[in-house]
This record gives sequence, C-alpha cells and structure tokens, in this order.
Amino acid sequence: MKTSRIERVMEKLNTMGMGQLIVSDPDSLYYLLGHSYDPGERLLALYLNDDGKAVLFHNHMFHFPEQEGLNIAYYDDIDDYMGVVAENVKPGAIGVDKFLRAKFLVPLMERRSDIQVKLGSPAVDWARKYKDAEELELMRASSLVNDKTVGGAIGHVGEDLTEQEMGDVVCDLHMSLGADARMEQLVCYGVNSAEPHHASDRTKIQPGDAVIFDIYAPVGHYFCDMTRTVFYKDVTEEQRKVYEIVKAANAAGKAAVRPGVPLKEIDRAARQVIEEAGYGQYFTHRTGHGCGLALHEPPDVSSVSEEIVEPGMTFSVEPGIYIPGKFGVRVEDLVACTEDGVEVLNYYPRDLVVVE
Amino acid sequence: MKTSRIERVMEKLNTMGMGQLIVSDPDSLYYLLGHSYDPGERLLALYLNDDGKAVLFHNHMFHFPEQEGLNIAYYDDIDDYMGVVAENVKPGAIGVDKFLRAKFLVPLMERRSDIQVKLGSPAVDWARKYKDAEELELMRASSLVNDKTVGGAIGHVGEDLTEQEMGDVVCDLHMSLGADARMEQLVCYGVNSAEPHHASDRTKIQPGDAVIFDIYAPVGHYFCDMTRTVFYKDVTEEQRKVYEIVKAANAAGKAAVRPGVPLKEIDRAARQVIEEAGYGQYFTHRTGHGCGLALHEPPDVSSVSEEIVEPGMTFSVEPGIYIPGKFGVRVEDLVACTEDGVEVLNYYPRDLVVVE
Repeated sequence: MKTSRIERVMEKLNTMGMGQLIVSDPDSLYYLLGHSYDPGERLLALYLNDDGKAVLFHNHMFHFPEQEGLNIAYYDDIDDYMGVVAENVKPGAIGVDKFLRAKFLVPLMERRSDIQVKLGSPAVDWARKYKDAEELELMRASSLVNDKTVGGAIGHVGEDLTEQEMGDVVCDLHMSLGADARMEQLVCYGVNSAEPHHASDRTKIQPGDAVIFDIYAPVGHYFCDMTRTVFYKDVTEEQRKVYEIVKAANAAGKAAVRPGVPLKEIDRAARQVIEEAGYGQYFTHRTGHGCGLALHEPPDVSSVSEEIVEPGMTFSVEPGIYIPGKFGVRVEDLVACTEDGVEVLNYYPRDLVVVE
Repeated sequence: MKTSRIERVMEKLNTMGMGQLIVSDPDSLYYLLGHSYDPGERLLALYLNDDGKAVLFHNHMFHFPEQEGLNIAYYDDIDDYMGVVAENVKPGAIGVDKFLRAKFLVPLMERRSDIQVKLGSPAVDWARKYKDAEELELMRASSLVNDKTVGGAIGHVGEDLTEQEMGDVVCDLHMSLGADARMEQLVCYGVNSAEPHHASDRTKIQPGDAVIFDIYAPVGHYFCDMTRTVFYKDVTEEQRKVYEIVKAANAAGKAAVRPGVPLKEIDRAARQVIEEAGYGQYFTHRTGHGCGLALHEPPDVSSVSEEIVEPGMTFSVEPGIYIPGKFGVRVEDLVACTEDGVEVLNYYPRDLVVVE
C-alpha cells in the first residue's frame, strides 16, 4: 500500500464530508496499491475508511500480491460479493469513484439504505493530479517513447498502408520501445482528419492528404499522448495557413502554463489565436486534458475550467482546426507545470512537413 | 432504431415494474439503434420510456446517424449534460443498465430525488440473449474466422515468439480475415497456462510447454471466442491425461445443451467429468458465458445458474484444469441452442496435438 497517498486521499475526502470510500478505477488502485489489473465485468474494489480499514474485494481467479495492512476479501463468481461489500461499509456518507458501474452500486444501495452515496472521485483525482518526482520521471520517459515513435511512423507515410495498418506501425514502434500494451491509435488521412474523433479505418493515403498522428501508449504505467499533423506530397495554401495557426495556438497555450493561472486561461490563450485568425468555429473541442496513469484524467483544460494550475500537474495542449469535408490539423504536446513555468514533455519538432 | 427490439425490451421492463430506462452499454446501443461507439469517459446514453420517448444523449464531437423516431440531444464537454438528462426523466422507478458509471448515475440521483434507481439491464440482456436468424448467421461467420485463425496461429508454435508476439500473430490473422478490431489475446506458455487469467507477457516458449490459445475478436460486431491447448515438442503422461479429461468435459458440456435444461446442468455435466477424474479442485471457474455483441454477456453457465436454456442462446463451454506451478489445459467452443439440441459454432479439431 502507498500509505502516504492513501492518507492524502482520506484527508481530502474528510474535507468533502465523507469518511469512507470505494475505489474501483484500476488506475487509482494502481496509484494507491502499486498493483492493479482490469477485472473486465468483475468487481475489483478497495474500501477505505477513517478507522484505517482497507479491504480489497478481489476475484479469486486473478492474482493480487499480499500487502501489509491490506485485507483481501477473495470471492468466486458464484459468491454474493456485493453482500460482502455491504457488510463492510459503515452507515452515513460514502464516496464511490466515478468509475464504479451501476452493476455494483445499485445492489449496494439496495442492501444499505443507511448510506448516502456521493462521488468520492475528486479526492483520489485531486491526489493523482499532483505528480511527484518519481511520477514526473516516468512521464518524461513515456513521452520520449512517443517522440521516437512519431518520428519512426512519419518515415512510413506514403507507403501503401491503411490508417489501421499505420496505427499498427505506431503500436509496433511503441512496443519495441517498451510500451506496456498495444492500443488502437488515431491515424487519420485526408478528409477523415476533419473529424476530431474519427476511428482509423481502411482508408488509404492520397497525395494532398493531411495526416494526423494522435498517438498514445502506457509506458511504465504512465501515458504519453501527442499529435503531429503532416502533409503527403502536396500542401495547399489553405492547409499551410491552417497549420501555422494551429502551431501558433499550441505554442500560445503552452506559454500560458505557470502556477496560479486558471486552466481556462490556457484554453483561452490557444483558442484566441484560432479565433483571431477567423477559424474559431472550427476548433470544436477543449484545449486539453490531464494525463498520467490514465490517458484522460483531471484536470480539464477547457473554457469553463476555473481550476488553478499548480506544480506537478501534467496535461495536454492540443488545439485543432477541423474544416468539415476537407481536412483537419491538430498539434498536441504534453506539458508539466513546474515551480515557475512549464516543462514541455515532447520535443519532436512542430515545423510543417510535407512528406515526398 | 430497431423498433421491434426496443418494444421487446420495454415489455420486459414493464414486467419488472419500470416504465423508463437508460441504456449506456455501447453494445446494447448497437443492438437497439444499429449504431454505436465507445465514448470513452464521456456520456453516450439512450433514454426510453413507455410514452414512446427515445432520446439519445450524445457528445457533439462524435458522429451519430440521424434516425426516425430518435431525438438526439447533442451536448458539448462544457454543457451540464446530466442536467439535461435529469430534465428528461419521469418520477418513479427508472432502470439503468449495469454499465452506467457512478460519474453519471450519482449526479442524476442528486438532481432527481423523486426517482428510484433500479438495474434495468436484465430487460436488455434478456432480449439480447435470444439471437435471431440474422444474428446467428453473424455468429457463425465470426466463429469461422476464429477456426481459421487458430489453425494459422498453431502453425507458428515453436517460432521464437513471446506470448505477446504470438498474440499479435493471432490479431493479424483475425484482421486479415475481416475482424472489426485488434484485441489483446490470451496466449499462455508453460507454467503461465496454469493461471486461467494470465495476461500474455514476454515469456518465450520452451519444449514441453502447454500452449493455450484463448482467442476472440468481434467480426461484424459479433464475437467469436474459442480456446485450444497444444503442446510443444513433448507431452508428459500427466499432461496427456489432463488433456483428455478436459476434452471429454468440453464434449459432455456441449452434449448437455438443449432447450429446457437449466444452465447449471451444463456446468454440472462438464464439471462432473473433471471431478470424477479427481481434478475437481483444479477447475476453478465457471463452465461458460454468453457471447454475442459482447465477448462476455448473459447467460451465465455456472453451478448456480438456474436459468433455462432456450433456442437462440449462444454461449461458451470452456472447462479447464489448472495445476498451479505446472500447467493448465482449457478447451472452449461456442455453441448455440437450437429448437431441439445444440449447434457447435467451432469446427477446429480438439484432438491432442504435439507441435514438433
């Protein structure tokens, strides 16, 4: 058990009016216990309370290392495991993390009418937002893998590869550089690049295509996430113009990062560049998201995020312009807020590239 | 909208004392709407009620085709989308599917103290359990991909591949045969095969290893799932004995499938073979699980499943014996219950194979 992390979470939880918590997000479990797994449709949850109780509800079929101070309640598929959870909780307010599914929460509420369920995630998310030195080192190492990968992948642009096959190239590079797992990547060619959340398909590349590489992977449990957009064989004046605006927006967003600034100001800094260039309506998503044990985690870097940037926070700055039916451009870097400014975790160049 | 499917779900929901339902499981959404996507941490949910109301809460960033009768409530990341959901629901009992996360459910309950949340999944799961002719055809096509894939993959046993790399070989075969997406596969060598839920790692193959291929993929949205165990270069008498017991248990489980039989009898039929051979303590999981739009879905084929097998149900029969620290064997097929018996969806042979 990561005792000091658990203590910080419980202190925060107390300020929220709760003295007990159920954690089921595998990433949060890794954060608090140094071990975790994806239990699929089964229950894996840690119960913590102010009396110092720590019980892990864990299916016999999987493996979990014994830990001092951690009581492991093993169950089989045929057991009434939610009954066991219900026996362990105390009356009153209880925090559950946002990840917990209704499959588990509704039966718990049915068994314990004396509990008031609230979202306890903010306590864990709050703690996870502030990366310590060890975590920052892991974040740097992870982003380095992404920098090397994007360079390798761009070298394959123009080969007879579908978006999905190019995604496989990215995965192969990630894995060869030590990523924990393969993940489906976001590679978009041409008109598909105009859809911010296009799923890579069997489209093949054509001259004149914008090519978006939005690539990510867990490395040592910590995620990298970056986006580069290149052009294949040809670039129009409009593409060039849009590219330079997005690149400038990315730079402006990063330059706005320092302790004490509300996150919405980072969104504003990036968005303003795009709005002033007349493309505001084509930047249809938030500027960024926290990144760490999860690819997407707090804090939220959007126009409504009042939260203040503090040292140790790591998040993406990823403005984009998407012109429906034509093309899109996005440039994304991960950054860490330092004691007095910003550390950009990605170094791969952002200059416009036309692959011949 | 798949109107007749929605009607069946709502009829079932009524018998459960509910007149409104929130569906968020992407597979159930595909079942009801013929389209779906994985929204990640965002909300994608369909609200249905007895008045014929059908509202889809859907993030602007993604694409969803317009459909007659379906009201799409678009939202942006910065909107109070749970407020919009809360405005749409009626007082009283409301079903939510088991998939819905606390992130959405708790804020809904906080806004609407006049609703009583229950699990509504059984209504959707009930409908999804009975595959119609079109679905069965898709299940057959999917399993055929798996049969071809396992044969191809076994041909690579003995090459200098880690478990993960062998999993990639499986994925490549799946994709080349038309699978919808790559999925991490479960390939286990040697002592790892004794762990039923071992995650494939960088272990390399050794002579004498049991090699478990538990492989699955969505093809045309419907999953295949099968397991074959082979041996590399050498097989001990104990391995041979265990293999034949598991193969016989698989056959006994399948032979027990016909309309009217409780699912626990299928578990019993398979388990009895293993128990009578003296290995009961090493068969540590249920005999099978439903399979369709999801890899794991109802019905449950376990020793406590009172549910009755009916035509159209598709599920796995996958007994195994796992001898800790030594080796494991599992043989799995998908089956469909027919009007008067069983259709085995996999044809790949189950005879003991030693790869030279």
